[in-house]
Amino acid sequence: MQKIRSGTLAALLLGSISTPSSLLAAPSSVETIRVTALADTVAMDFTEGLTTEVGPRPAGTPQEARARDWAVAKLKSLGFSNVRVEPYTMPVWLRGRDEARVISPFPQNLVLAALGNSASTPEKGIDGEVVYFPTLADLEAAPEASLKGKIVFVSHAMHATQDGSSYGTFGATRRQGPSIASKKGAIAILIRSIGTDNHRQPHTGVQMWADGVKPIPAAALSVPDAEQLARMVARGQPVRLHLTLTSKMLKDQPSGNVVAEIPGGDPKAGVVVAACHLDSWDQGTGAIDDGAGCGIVAAAALQAAKGGPLRRTILILMAGAEEVGGNGGRAYYDAHGREPHAMAMESDFGADRVWRVDFKLPQNHDALARRIIAGLAPLGIGASRLPAGGGSDIEPLVKAGVPVVDLQQDGTRYFDIHHTPDDTLDKIDPAQLQQNVAAWAVALFEIANAPESLGVN
Amino acid sequence: MQKIRSGTLAALLLGSISTPSSLLAAPSSVETIRVTALADTVAMDFTEGLTTEVGPRPAGTPQEARARDWAVAKLKSLGFSNVRVEPYTMPVWLRGRDEARVISPFPQNLVLAALGNSASTPEKGIDGEVVYFPTLADLEAAPEASLKGKIVFVSHAMHATQDGSSYGTFGATRRQGPSIASKKGAIAILIRSIGTDNHRQPHTGVQMWADGVKPIPAAALSVPDAEQLARMVARGQPVRLHLTLTSKMLKDQPSGNVVAEIPGGDPKAGVVVAACHLDSWDQGTGAIDDGAGCGIVAAAALQAAKGGPLRRTILILMAGAEEVGGNGGRAYYDAHGREPHAMAMESDFGADRVWRVDFKLPQNHDALARRIIAGLAPLGIGASRLPAGGGSDIEPLVKAGVPVVDLQQDGTRYFDIHHTPDDTLDKIDPAQLQQNVAAWAVALFEIANAPESLGVN
Repeated sequence: MQKIRSGTLAALLLGSISTPSSLLAAPSSVETIRVTALADTVAMDFTEGLTTEVGPRPAGTPQEARARDWAVAKLKSLGFSNVRVEPYTMPVWLRGRDEARVISPFPQNLVLAALGNSASTPEKGIDGEVVYFPTLADLEAAPEASLKGKIVFVSHAMHATQDGSSYGTFGATRRQGPSIASKKGAIAILIRSIGTDNHRQPHTGVQMWADGVKPIPAAALSVPDAEQLARMVARGQPVRLHLTLTSKMLKDQPSGNVVAEIPGGDPKAGVVVAACHLDSWDQGTGAIDDGAGCGIVAAAALQAAKGGPLRRTILILMAGAEEVGGNGGRAYYDAHGREPHAMAMESDFGADRVWRVDFKLPQNHDALARRIIAGLAPLGIGASRLPAGGGSDIEPLVKAGVPVVDLQQDGTRYFDIHHTPDDTLDKIDPAQLQQNVAAWAVALFEIANAPESLGVN
Repeated sequence: MQKIRSGTLAALLLGSISTPSSLLAAPSSVETIRVTALADTVAMDFTEGLTTEVGPRPAGTPQEARARDWAVAKLKSLGFSNVRVEPYTMPVWLRGRDEARVISPFPQNLVLAALGNSASTPEKGIDGEVVYFPTLADLEAAPEASLKGKIVFVSHAMHATQDGSSYGTFGATRRQGPSIASKKGAIAILIRSIGTDNHRQPHTGVQMWADGVKPIPAAALSVPDAEQLARMVARGQPVRLHLTLTSKMLKDQPSGNVVAEIPGGDPKAGVVVAACHLDSWDQGTGAIDDGAGCGIVAAAALQAAKGGPLRRTILILMAGAEEVGGNGGRAYYDAHGREPHAMAMESDFGADRVWRVDFKLPQNHDALARRIIAGLAPLGIGASRLPAGGGSDIEPLVKAGVPVVDLQQDGTRYFDIHHTPDDTLDKIDPAQLQQNVAAWAVALFEIANAPESLGVN
């Protein structure tokens, strides 16, 4: 990750230099865009439509194809140009039955959901004794081959964070736990959901098997079920489970990105990519992840363009197959990575308010950052000195050096809902969604019209 | 329901008479009981044990039988006397598969749970077009036979209330809706869950078919799913569903009450019944409904007895089969209704704090009410002038004229969880549970030791 540029912007953030008033007073057109965007209805309409009329849209499935058709029609009706699907193919993991039952000593069912790429049990399920690890580190410390024939159960102590950083730390249990358990001989692994709620809604999510590791059945218990199982284990008697996690893998299934544009007047200035993802996990309707993100970027591009013709093209990338490995983002980069890109941005962290802006800009672009900061301040958004990093849909662009601005959303309640059946429209607060649109509209307006030279290629 | 006695108590509540200070200063033994009970650990231990080691315990099932065995052992270990099971038999409805899928125009699954006594669909399910009614009154207004071949969907606008009164009003959709829909020719009925949350956790519950009505498949959609279906209907195209609700009815299954006592010194003074129910719905572990109630009454009886021998016997009634129609309460009354009962009380409204006390006492027992009010006031509990009504486990006793005191619990979040998979231990706040124990201990102490003559028979 590129180092944050030092100099005047950092000093400005620290308040150690005086700021010309012209930089803090947003131009009236930005103010108009911001105020107008705060009354936006497109983002909610988009999110309501996608989640109601398509609903769940797992990567590489017919539902995702319906989402592409839906989005193409919607974006055309909203007036976007060059609306198209850019197809690719991919392997697809499909959930089957997810069932768990404590056989002894306290017979009862547990609620869980298989993780992406889980191996399937036989139809009749498997039995095994539970071996409990309070943390991933405890699992890592177990001797090699010590878990032969066992069902591993790993917990953790994730709590909510505004910046979502606890997902990075505790999500390792989902990302790495299955491969570690398999290497040590386990016949299956259950993890406490990577979530911060206390509802019986398991948090699924993808995990990739490490090279050479044999896939085993892998699932997340809902948080209350994980606590229940931990209480049983704590009583000291052997706990035996019956586990049925049927799933299947399909090769070469169709997926694709939906791309739409608001053309700018200066093609050589590079496009501004505003990304989200169209696919969702299979159990919810993908409202906060990431229907809202697609609603935000589409609405904000339209709001930004209300100020008149833009210098740069805003390109809406509604990526496919983000949840299972970022296939859509890679396909976009493979097709377009060598074209001029001025900036890449992504909205994929729910629908709660933007609270902070992070930058990764070329050297000597502090003036642009200052204009964006000034435009966002009336929305209650502060600036950080942390480098922007983008998200998985724009990761290949970011790695190639395209500048990034991150409009960081409040993640305090994001992991209550993330990847669960509970990811539904009712979780979206319309006023916070509108604040997102306003923040994005301001940023896109400033970036698309920036007189500075930006980007790569 | 007996009219509330007027006179001095009512005047006291209105503050219109002066109160002898001796009545407001609780005796030191009550204060000791209250303070000690606020540190109670028995109620949480009981609730944790029952919900973990037995888990779900539907009426008339082997799991309920395990709950009786568990409770007998626990109550004996706590030092109760005359601990026994009083068996009876009953018909049992058993849930099968609960599945719903929108066939058109927006194919996707919906989350729902069959209601108690629902008819079963064939294994392969049924198809039908949805007819939507925003309220039960709208369904009632539909012409006879107008719903032939249709799947009825009824919504409502229930919101949380502290006293739970919205359940009475809006619960009619669950209690009466299925019979009304069947009479008008519907092939199935779906209702919006009688709940105040927005999670994908359907609220089940019992409903009884009216005389002569043909049972049809009947289920509750989770609140987000009900809102999703309403949005689909609002788009104006016919909405078709595929519905699979398999269930079965069994005759003459064993159930029973668990009864335990703390013997008092004066058998002729009548027993004080402290009731709860041991059964739960099948999807959760019955923590707030009603494991906590059983923990509260057991713990409180022990706390009340810490003050020394009691005049009256406290009888703990852990009723079976409350959820499906109050079978346990009736069986208790059939066996014991003619024995002397001084008072009946019940804890069956979750584990949140007691906020109000209601009375239904014989005439001229204001002094007892005043002692109870004084003992509860330091716990933040106010007195009402509403008549106490008890709950279904003591309903036959109350109808027979046994006096009642209701320690009303805060129901603001009760119907977020009630009858859902989410009814699990983590929903219980230990401090509020302890406040319940303290309130109950104070009331039981005052009632069991009251020098007044109380009760019937």
